Amino acid sequence: RTLRIGLIPGDGIGREVIPAGRRVLESLPSSLNLKFSFVDLEAGYDTFQKTGTALPDKTVDTLKKECDGALFGAVSSPSTKVAGYSSPIVALRKKLDLFANVRPVKTTLGSSNGNPIDLVIVRENTEDLYVKEEKTIEGPDGKVAEAIKRISERASSRISTIAGEIALRRQKIRSTAPATSTRDQPMVTITHKSNVLSQTDGLFRETARKALAAEKFSSVLVEEQIVDSMVYKLFRQPEYYDVIVAPNLYGDILSDGAAALVGSLGLVPSANVGDGFAIGEPCHGSAPDIEGKGIANPIATLRSVALMLEFLGEENAAAKIYSAVDANLDEAKFLSPDMGGKASTNEVLNDVLKRL
Amino acid sequence: RTLRIGLIPGDGIGREVIPAGRRVLESLPSSLNLKFSFVDLEAGYDTFQKTGTALPDKTVDTLKKECDGALFGAVSSPSTKVAGYSSPIVALRKKLDLFANVRPVKTTLGSSNGNPIDLVIVRENTEDLYVKEEKTIEGPDGKVAEAIKRISERASSRISTIAGEIALRRQKIRSTAPATSTRDQPMVTITHKSNVLSQTDGLFRETARKALAAEKFSSVLVEEQIVDSMVYKLFRQPEYYDVIVAPNLYGDILSDGAAALVGSLGLVPSANVGDGFAIGEPCHGSAPDIEGKGIANPIATLRSVALMLEFLGEENAAAKIYSAVDANLDEAKFLSPDMGGKASTNEVLNDVLKRL
Ligand SMILES: CC(C)[C@H](C(=O)O)[C@@H](O)C(=O)O
Ligand SMILES: CC(C)[C@H](C(=O)O)[C@@H](O)C(=O)O
Repeated sequence: RTLRIGLIPGDGIGREVIPAGRRVLESLPSSLNLKFSFVDLEAGYDTFQKTGTALPDKTVDTLKKECDGALFGAVSSPSTKVAGYSSPIVALRKKLDLFANVRPVKTTLGSSNGNPIDLVIVRENTEDLYVKEEKTIEGPDGKVAEAIKRISERASSRISTIAGEIALRRQKIRSTAPATSTRDQPMVTITHKSNVLSQTDGLFRETARKALAAEKFSSVLVEEQIVDSMVYKLFRQPEYYDVIVAPNLYGDILSDGAAALVGSLGLVPSANVGDGFAIGEPCHGSAPDIEGKGIANPIATLRSVALMLEFLGEENAAAKIYSAVDANLDEAKFLSPDMGGKASTNEVLNDVLKRL
Repeated sequence: RTLRIGLIPGDGIGREVIPAGRRVLESLPSSLNLKFSFVDLEAGYDTFQKTGTALPDKTVDTLKKECDGALFGAVSSPSTKVAGYSSPIVALRKKLDLFANVRPVKTTLGSSNGNPIDLVIVRENTEDLYVKEEKTIEGPDGKVAEAIKRISERASSRISTIAGEIALRRQKIRSTAPATSTRDQPMVTITHKSNVLSQTDGLFRETARKALAAEKFSSVLVEEQIVDSMVYKLFRQPEYYDVIVAPNLYGDILSDGAAALVGSLGLVPSANVGDGFAIGEPCHGSAPDIEGKGIANPIATLRSVALMLEFLGEENAAAKIYSAVDANLDEAKFLSPDMGGKASTNEVLNDVLKRL
């Protein structure tokens, strides 16, 4: 099988980590019978400054017509408001209907101190406040701006279903390696703020409950947690959680919080997942402070490559990358500066490649 | 001076901690020349079940006409949607125009391990998604619900101004005890998500920048942080932060996150502050799991009493309570179970009272 992958480095260190992502795909063992072809695509703030749009139509069209998946680096946000600019990754998620943003956060053997964290945040990726329908009026006391938070039964249902499926898949993987996990039942925690937003978040909560009550999820324990106390609990007992499903904005916030627990945003991958398409995307930003120095941590991107492969049905290839990355972290010989090490992007990458 | 204080225990452990709050006021040294009278008021889910409303008019009227301040305990949320029920504390904040929710989070000498945390979250308290303007339509793919997020220049400006004033006041207090702090400049961090919500959060950001550029804040360092990375930073380097100002919902989430850093929600106070009126309110909930056992931690409430007094202009009385509480925590002899101790609510209270 040959997979065609769009490469969208974006801005800043996106240009340093996406090539690492390409390298890992090219270096997969031939026994996997998997080939890749690549197409370079543009998006980001630099693209906006050059062309007047942050997400050229050509990028979207090529992804739709030619590609099986893609890797997205990071984009810079302008430090003050710039007319006409808006985030290309948010637009891309919507244009390709990549309805789920999947963000696994786990400690490796080396980094955990007794309480291994192994959770995944499944974030709805197309609606909530991210519909970006805003308006501003000039009132008697100055400006008043309003934004719409939209929650639909359809989007809430499909994100909850995929969360349940991920919980089942994780349980299956755990059951083949029981020694490394103490969890005996898959669990999904529904996050919302329905004590204030009874209709919108109330609809998310009810719909998630309904979707997860399906027969195929009968082995899944379903719990819920109000978003503010979810953040509290996430910090107090992260090892308790398995799959957390959340509307878009809460998922955004929770995944950065979870990343803090494992030491660095430079470790945390994500995949934007739709029907038959997936974009791998490291959770970190474009990091202008270290741009061009060759010291960006490639791990988040390498794991995002694996995550993309998983959702494209290539679980064996994904597993190879995951264990090579875990071995690199466990040995802790080649770590980038964000992890307290001294290795460059390429040194970390090469150490991972030789373990494939 | 005699202050008349409304007591609103609400539900669950609210009924155990609010009496402790009353006791500390009654026990303040007479040298302060401060007297208190009290009026018991109703609100909460139990009140709703008895009377059909969670916030009786009588409670609001009495607070408005007779009281200088109040103490609010906690309310239970029904576990499924209940027609007609809505949170009385959210309504109270709006009806009394208590526009600022002030939530200080700090480690005491005893609990910090080298990195003392001493920050305060100043949360806008009247708008954002808390306007609770929601509607639901039945679409072709099922229900679609929408909520309004409203951000006004007026509310953003006054919350930012009070945040700046709090930063200056904290600096003044620090300058009298320089040994306990390494911070040499007051700082306000503006939190928002204007990279997605350019109009609403963009307005909050711009207005906060403008308000904090006022001459009187020239000594204040002003920074900003996108809400997701704010949560990340809050967990990675909490000791860096001083005053964090945020729209309503982000403030709600951030304050629970900050509470997790100091070990227990049972330690974290808040004050809902308006012009000349303040309601002290512990950040924790009604805690049905420990209700009636007499083991609720009264510290959050005792600190909320102090915070209320501060905003009513009684800084000396507030300081007495703060140091009695800190001494109790530093000695760590009478701690409630959430802190790993064995003391009852009353034992903790009595230990604090004897240090006044
Ligand atoms: C850059 C920003 C628009 C984006 C988001 O809010 O989704 C980022 O924070 C993320 O989590 O991918
Ligand atoms: C109970 C709830 C409505 C409330 C809020 O969201 O403001 C609580 O979380 C708080 O922080 O005081």
